[in-house]
Amino acid sequence: MHMSARRAAAFTGTPAYIAKTVAVASLTAAAAVTLTLQGNLAGNIAECDATASVNKMTKVSTKPDISALDISVLDDTNVPMRKRMETYVKLLQRRLVDDIEAEENAGRTSHEPKHFTVESWTRKEGGEGTSCVIQDGEVFEKGGINVSVVYGNLPPSAIRQMSADHGGLTERVGYKIEGRDAEVDGLPFFATGISVVIHPKNPMGPTAHFNYRYFELMHPKTLKDGSPNPRYKKDEPVAWWFGGGADLTPMYLFPDDAKHFHEIHKAAADSQDAAFFPAWKRWCDNYFWLTHRGESRGIGGVFFDDLTLPSWTSNKATFIPLVDGSKNTDRQLVSAKQHDKESLFRAVRAMGDAFIPAYLPLVHKHKYDKFTSQNLEWQHLRRGRYVEFNLVYDRGTKFGLMTPGARIESILMSLPLFARWEYMEGTTGTGRQNSTAASMNDIDNQKKYPEEEMRARAAIQDVLEHPQDWLA
Amino acid sequence: MHMSARRAAAFTGTPAYIAKTVAVASLTAAAAVTLTLQGNLAGNIAECDATASVNKMTKVSTKPDISALDISVLDDTNVPMRKRMETYVKLLQRRLVDDIEAEENAGRTSHEPKHFTVESWTRKEGGEGTSCVIQDGEVFEKGGINVSVVYGNLPPSAIRQMSADHGGLTERVGYKIEGRDAEVDGLPFFATGISVVIHPKNPMGPTAHFNYRYFELMHPKTLKDGSPNPRYKKDEPVAWWFGGGADLTPMYLFPDDAKHFHEIHKAAADSQDAAFFPAWKRWCDNYFWLTHRGESRGIGGVFFDDLTLPSWTSNKATFIPLVDGSKNTDRQLVSAKQHDKESLFRAVRAMGDAFIPAYLPLVHKHKYDKFTSQNLEWQHLRRGRYVEFNLVYDRGTKFGLMTPGARIESILMSLPLFARWEYMEGTTGTGRQNSTAASMNDIDNQKKYPEEEMRARAAIQDVLEHPQDWLA
Repeated sequence: MHMSARRAAAFTGTPAYIAKTVAVASLTAAAAVTLTLQGNLAGNIAECDATASVNKMTKVSTKPDISALDISVLDDTNVPMRKRMETYVKLLQRRLVDDIEAEENAGRTSHEPKHFTVESWTRKEGGEGTSCVIQDGEVFEKGGINVSVVYGNLPPSAIRQMSADHGGLTERVGYKIEGRDAEVDGLPFFATGISVVIHPKNPMGPTAHFNYRYFELMHPKTLKDGSPNPRYKKDEPVAWWFGGGADLTPMYLFPDDAKHFHEIHKAAADSQDAAFFPAWKRWCDNYFWLTHRGESRGIGGVFFDDLTLPSWTSNKATFIPLVDGSKNTDRQLVSAKQHDKESLFRAVRAMGDAFIPAYLPLVHKHKYDKFTSQNLEWQHLRRGRYVEFNLVYDRGTKFGLMTPGARIESILMSLPLFARWEYMEGTTGTGRQNSTAASMNDIDNQKKYPEEEMRARAAIQDVLEHPQDWLA
Repeated sequence: MHMSARRAAAFTGTPAYIAKTVAVASLTAAAAVTLTLQGNLAGNIAECDATASVNKMTKVSTKPDISALDISVLDDTNVPMRKRMETYVKLLQRRLVDDIEAEENAGRTSHEPKHFTVESWTRKEGGEGTSCVIQDGEVFEKGGINVSVVYGNLPPSAIRQMSADHGGLTERVGYKIEGRDAEVDGLPFFATGISVVIHPKNPMGPTAHFNYRYFELMHPKTLKDGSPNPRYKKDEPVAWWFGGGADLTPMYLFPDDAKHFHEIHKAAADSQDAAFFPAWKRWCDNYFWLTHRGESRGIGGVFFDDLTLPSWTSNKATFIPLVDGSKNTDRQLVSAKQHDKESLFRAVRAMGDAFIPAYLPLVHKHKYDKFTSQNLEWQHLRRGRYVEFNLVYDRGTKFGLMTPGARIESILMSLPLFARWEYMEGTTGTGRQNSTAASMNDIDNQKKYPEEEMRARAAIQDVLEHPQDWLA
C-alpha cells in the first residue's frame, strides 16, 4: 500500500500537521492564474496559464500595498491603457478593503479588530495578483476581493476558441494563426481585472458580486520564422475590450434596496451613455439565470462584455453595438454616441466607482437587523443556489477550475461559508407546482414558520423567478 | 413592472403560500426525466427527454409499491432483460428503503417514527420513476433512492454523441442515421436504473453512493420511408450494456471501514469474475477525482460502464475488454472468462446486492459515536467537496441539469443538507503548500483543535489526496 509522507507521519506518531508546518518554511512555488477575469476571457487565458506551475512565494498582510502606484496615470492618455486599468483596479481593491474593514470593525463587539487576509502571488510567465479575503466576521460572513495582472502568449487554439465567443476576432487578428503556413505562434495578450464577492452575515443583508476587466491581444514583435513583424507597433493592440458588471443577491426582498442598487448603477452608466444601462441590466438578468431552477441568482444589476469601439468590431457599425445577452433579440440596441477609448475607460471607472455607494449602504443598513434561526436557515438555502450558479454556470469559475495550476482557493472564495439543500423545499423546490411532496413541505412550513416569514420567503422567491426592472 | 400572480398576492395581503397550496389541488403536470442513469448515458437520454413537459400527477407515500412486481422474472431467461433489470432495481430500492428506515427508527428518540417521502411520476413519452427521500432524521441527514424506467426515441444527434463515448457504437448500429439518405429517424431506446446517495448525520459515519443501470438501443420496426425494417426482430437490441458502481466518502478515516466496504464489493465481483474488481476499483478512483482540488471525492469502491459481451463491441475481442478509466493505460485489462448476458446480469445483481452489507453496517457502527461541534464543522467542509464534485464533474448530474424538463429535485437530492467552504483552510486548502495564509490557518487550527482532531483530519485528507487500495 502506498504511504505518502504525511500519511506515514500520521500513522507513526509524528503529527502530520507539524511536518506540514515545517515544510511551509521552504516555500518555493505558488500556483497562480488569472482569477479575476470572468467569462470566456478567463477561460482562454486560463488555458495558456496551464504551464504556470512554478511561481514565487506568497506573502501575507492585511492590506493590499498601493505604495508603488502612480495615481496620475489614471487620467494620462499617454500612458498605455494596460497600466491605467491595472492602477485603477488596484486602487479600487484597496478602497474596498478599507471600507469593508471599517464597516466590519465599526461597532464590533470582539475587542480584537477583524482584518483581511491579503496574499500576493507572482506568475512565472508574467504577471501577479493579490487575493484579499475576510471570513467569519461579525458583519461579513465571507468576502473576497481579487486583483490580477496577467500577460503572456495566447496559443493558436486559445485564439480560435476566443474568436468563437468574441465575434469578428479572427478577421480582426488577420494573421494566419494555424496550420503549416501559420505566420505567428500565438499572440501576446494582457489582462487585468478586479473580482469581488461579498456575503454579509445578517440574512437581511444582500450578497453582492462585481467584476471589471480589460483585455488586450497584441502584435508579436517577430513572426514565426523569426523575421520582424511589419504590423508590430508598440502599444498598438490587435484587439481590446472591457467587460464587467455588478449584481445583487438578497435573501429577503427589500424593494428599496433593489432600487437603490440599480439607481446608483444606472446613474453611473447614464453619465456616460444612456444606451448602456438598459442593455446591461437585461444582460445581467440573462447571464445570472439558473436554467435548471427556473430562477435568477439575484435580483439584477449590470453585466457587459466585449465593450470596444466600432472600428475594432467586425460589423463596422458607426456606433458601439450593444447586446443584452438574449439569444434571439428582435430589438437592435445601439448607442447613439460617438465613443473613443477614453470614454469607454471613463464608463468602466464610473461603473467600478458606483459599487461602493450602491452596495455598502445596504450592508450598513441591515447589519444590526434582528434575525431568527429560521432566517438563517433560509439564508443557507439561498446560499446553496449561489453555489449552484457559481459551480454549474459561471463561466469564469468553470474555466478557472479546468485550468491546471489555477489558484483554486481564489476562484472559490466566491462560495459562502454555509449552504443548505432541502429536497422539494416548500417555497423553493424546483417543479414544486407538480410535486405533492413539495406541497406537503409547504404545509409543514406554514405550521413551522410565522405567516410573516412565509410571506417574506415567497416575495423574494417570486422576483427571482420573475426578474424585475426595479426602476420602471 | 411585471407582477406575477404570486407576487401580486404577496403585495395585496393574500398570503402567497395559501394561493400556492390551493393551486396544488389542480395538479396536471409533473416533469420527469431519467435521473438514475449516470454518465453519458444519462446525458444522451436526457436529451431526448427534452420534450417530456407534460406528465401525470405525482402521488406520495412512505414506501415504493412493489405489489405489482413478479419476482420470478429475475431468473427467467425467457423474459426480456429490460423487464428483469427493472424488476431487480425496484426490489433493491424497496429493500434499501426498508433497511434504512429500520436503521433510522431503531433507537430513535423522537416518539414519531421517521419515514421516507416517496414520490412516483410517469413520463408522457414512455416510462416512470419513483424518488424516495429521507431528510433530517436522527441517523440519516439526507438519503435519496431513485429508480427510473425510461424509453422512447433516441434522435440521431444523441446517437452520434453517445457513439463518441461508447466506442464502436456507430459501427454496431449499422444504419445510416444522419443526412438526406438516413435510413432511420433515430432509434428506440430503453433505460432503467437505481441511483442512491446517503449522508448519515454522525460525522463518523461515511457517505455512500451507488448506481446500477441497464441500457438498450433497439431496431425500429419501420424505416424512415415507412417500409418494414428487415433487421427488426422483437427483443433483439442493436446494442446494450450495464453500468454502475458504489463508492464510499468518509469524513474521518476508519481504515477498517474502508477495508470492509472494498472487501464486500470485491467478494461480490470475484464471485463472477476475478478480473472485474481490479479494473473497477481503479476506474472508481479515476472517476471520482476532483482535478481542481487534487483529491478524490471519497476513498474508492467500484465503478464501471459499457459492460457488454465481446460480440457487441467493435474490437471483436474473445473476452470482455475491461477498462479502468485511465487515459493512457499501459496495461491490457482482460477477463479470461467466457461470459454471456446472463452472467453479466448476475454480476450486476451481485454488485447491487453487495451494497447493503457493505455499507449499512458502517452507518450502524457509527450512529451513536460521540462527536463535537468541531467534528460537525469538518463534516460540513467535506460535504462542500461532495457538492463540488457533483456539480462540477459528475456526468449524470451535469447532463441532468442541462435537460429541459428534468426532475431537478431528484437529480440534486444527492446534495447534503449542510455544506461549508473556508478560504485556504489549513488542512484542506488547495495549493496550501504554497500559501502563507493556509499555513497561518493551519497554525490557528492547531490552537483551536486538539491534536487528536488535527491528526484525524490530516489522515483522511491524506488518503483522499493519495488513493489507496485498502486490500493490498
